[in-house]
Amino acid sequence: MALDEPLRMDSPTLAERDQQLKAEQGVSDVSPMRLRMEKFVKEQQKLIVQALQEVDGAKFRVDEWQRKEGGGGITCVLQDGNVFEKAGVGVSVVYGTLPKPAILKMRANHKNIADGDNIPDSLEFFAAGLSLIVHPKNPMAPTVHLNYRYFETANPDGSPGAWWFGGGCDLTPCYLFDEDAVQFHKAIKDVCDKHDKEYYPRFKKWCDDYFYNKHRGEGRGVGGIFFDDLDESVSDRENLFAFVQDALKSFLPTYIPIVNRRKDMPFTEKEKEWQQVRRARYVEFNLVHDRGTAFGLNTPGARVESILMSMPLTASWRYMYEPEPKSREARLVEVLKNPKDTSIERNDNPLRRVPPTHRHLLTTLHVLFPALVLPALDLLDRGLVARVVLAGADPEEGKKKQQQCHQQQRQCEGQHISANDDDGGDDDNRRRDCAAFYLVGSASAAAAIPGFTV
Amino acid sequence: MALDEPLRMDSPTLAERDQQLKAEQGVSDVSPMRLRMEKFVKEQQKLIVQALQEVDGAKFRVDEWQRKEGGGGITCVLQDGNVFEKAGVGVSVVYGTLPKPAILKMRANHKNIADGDNIPDSLEFFAAGLSLIVHPKNPMAPTVHLNYRYFETANPDGSPGAWWFGGGCDLTPCYLFDEDAVQFHKAIKDVCDKHDKEYYPRFKKWCDDYFYNKHRGEGRGVGGIFFDDLDESVSDRENLFAFVQDALKSFLPTYIPIVNRRKDMPFTEKEKEWQQVRRARYVEFNLVHDRGTAFGLNTPGARVESILMSMPLTASWRYMYEPEPKSREARLVEVLKNPKDTSIERNDNPLRRVPPTHRHLLTTLHVLFPALVLPALDLLDRGLVARVVLAGADPEEGKKKQQQCHQQQRQCEGQHISANDDDGGDDDNRRRDCAAFYLVGSASAAAAIPGFTV
Repeated sequence: MALDEPLRMDSPTLAERDQQLKAEQGVSDVSPMRLRMEKFVKEQQKLIVQALQEVDGAKFRVDEWQRKEGGGGITCVLQDGNVFEKAGVGVSVVYGTLPKPAILKMRANHKNIADGDNIPDSLEFFAAGLSLIVHPKNPMAPTVHLNYRYFETANPDGSPGAWWFGGGCDLTPCYLFDEDAVQFHKAIKDVCDKHDKEYYPRFKKWCDDYFYNKHRGEGRGVGGIFFDDLDESVSDRENLFAFVQDALKSFLPTYIPIVNRRKDMPFTEKEKEWQQVRRARYVEFNLVHDRGTAFGLNTPGARVESILMSMPLTASWRYMYEPEPKSREARLVEVLKNPKDTSIERNDNPLRRVPPTHRHLLTTLHVLFPALVLPALDLLDRGLVARVVLAGADPEEGKKKQQQCHQQQRQCEGQHISANDDDGGDDDNRRRDCAAFYLVGSASAAAAIPGFTV
Repeated sequence: MALDEPLRMDSPTLAERDQQLKAEQGVSDVSPMRLRMEKFVKEQQKLIVQALQEVDGAKFRVDEWQRKEGGGGITCVLQDGNVFEKAGVGVSVVYGTLPKPAILKMRANHKNIADGDNIPDSLEFFAAGLSLIVHPKNPMAPTVHLNYRYFETANPDGSPGAWWFGGGCDLTPCYLFDEDAVQFHKAIKDVCDKHDKEYYPRFKKWCDDYFYNKHRGEGRGVGGIFFDDLDESVSDRENLFAFVQDALKSFLPTYIPIVNRRKDMPFTEKEKEWQQVRRARYVEFNLVHDRGTAFGLNTPGARVESILMSMPLTASWRYMYEPEPKSREARLVEVLKNPKDTSIERNDNPLRRVPPTHRHLLTTLHVLFPALVLPALDLLDRGLVARVVLAGADPEEGKKKQQQCHQQQRQCEGQHISANDDDGGDDDNRRRDCAAFYLVGSASAAAAIPGFTV
């Protein structure tokens, strides 16, 4: 042995063995689950980052990091974008050592982590997962959170020990659009049902129970699924991996259409303020109740900025902020306080109440202007249309009316709907007395309202 | 006994006895400490609310509330004021029952709460305290937090059991002005020294240890004092009450001059952004580490809005937000990461480095313009003065230059210093490339900069 080689008394670690395996054989369907999960979440991270960038137009910042205690990850964050206030997509692949107290704790759910009569002082472990959180700017577009992870321990002799999968995905709107919640739940249910009909009801309840702001007596959002400790007592490893893969892969086709529907909807400053208040509830859940965040923040050497990428860019705590009775804000709170409320599962479409004699009119309009009629009905529904200006056939006449619009708008200190209104909430108080003014006058005047050009 | 009177088998509760005592005899120096502390904190609440209102101009909202499990309080909040983003001053007076596990836990610090061989299943307790938190709008003005409280238990036979005082006061600047930190600590030290020379060093260290954002490796602020469990092992009850009274009474004369010095200082949007990032650290401490907040949020029937009045109105989580090297922001972080740094205790006044031959010039200026010279030096120190316009004796000439100022300002998209700039931080990115422009041109042009009219 050459003198400059360190003397090694111990056998190679799990990390070293995996490195060697990857270098020699690559990763295939017969590789250890550790390598397959790592490969899968890294591929998915790239796809998700790419898709969110396409929606936003801005780029993610990509940080690769190493944890000096073992392992590392890739954290991708898009901040202050066009569509997203903050979007974080993180992968972590950690090799480490579990101390005895952690082993004893894990034995509660995983008997085969160690022989009860012979608990070792420490065990090597592997953990790989993908976490993402997306906070859109538009208060009509919901926040989404997702996490899928795989955990495995190695026995002292190097053989595989216990393993399990965990994860889930949940939606947190500031304004409840039933169709979004229904579509989100349906997509998840379809994935679950494909693997086991019992998954969806069980994991949906787990999600409602877990993402609950106990001190507020309300759910964080409208739910989704959440599960942990899925091991051989639930299904075999291949089946569970297939389920987790399907669940993660279903994220983009589910969320992207929702955010595309909402990202350019008009909104008022007051609605942005409500979003900021709801963001604060999100912070409260993550910092007070979320076990993952608490675990992360208490882990020595953890990368705090990767853990807290879940925090919204901005949040607001307004003392005794109560939504007005029967408002859309009040309806959200009502649903969050009564998670058993099934309204989001019945497709409670108010258009069903339109008399049959008038339905064909709406249908015709919708066929002619597929992207415009529903947002327009939403504006009407919220009682936000104060004045309708019809641009006449005479262009001069139209221009004049448009100028009137602009003038009135200025008198209102510029409170117009804008889908990307960046103003903070501090000056809302001063403007509150000014009647809301919606500029739905002409194509050019409405240029500031993407997706709304009638 | 009349039939409509409820049959009472039990003796009157502590709350009932105190009510009767107050009604019959009022509250004096010979009353039980419970009543004296309640009277004292309620008086102080009124004085503090009044003084903060005078500084701000806006009024506090006052909410009296009852806790159905026993006791109640008065929560006063001023939100979105002229000087204060949010100021909360709360008093709570709680009568309740300690369950056995709580008694066992408290025995660790208070042996006389119950006889070790005979722990009762429950004990009546009393707790009264005042909490306050003030978040000023101006990033140059520091946040302050204060809490003083008294706790007492009653033995099963109704006789007084254990008692103790707790509390403290600490300062959290976003920009460190040594003179503020020095003045704050000196005032507290003077109060402590008056009662016991060992208090200040002991309680200062306790404060540094307690208000520590462990996951960030930095203190929440520049400290102050913190103590708990001050009972007969420390001093007698009269002396401790006198100490707590002096400490609470010293708040207004200490903090008001600090906030008056800072509230109208000019600041940039970038500095406001830094304040928002620091606000988020404040939220992290309160929700992740503060035992009082955690205890409150986990107490059934607690008034959540009173507990969370400590939250700032707005906060911002920016991924990987790093201050520039050697900036004022970096200096703050350096001090917070090294709480043993004594720079805030040495009065490290850079004016001492002015050559003796020039000192009389500064002294003369300071005598002539006592409110203006130090802020002007601060602007120079921060390298923020790009152009100085001297208003000539000719008024027309002055007006012309002033117009130039305004024009240049518009080109800069209006980034001028304003002491009450309400714009949110979202559009900071777009303006960042625009060189900072400080309007220190003429009296009228500087009208937007209160306290800075040269």
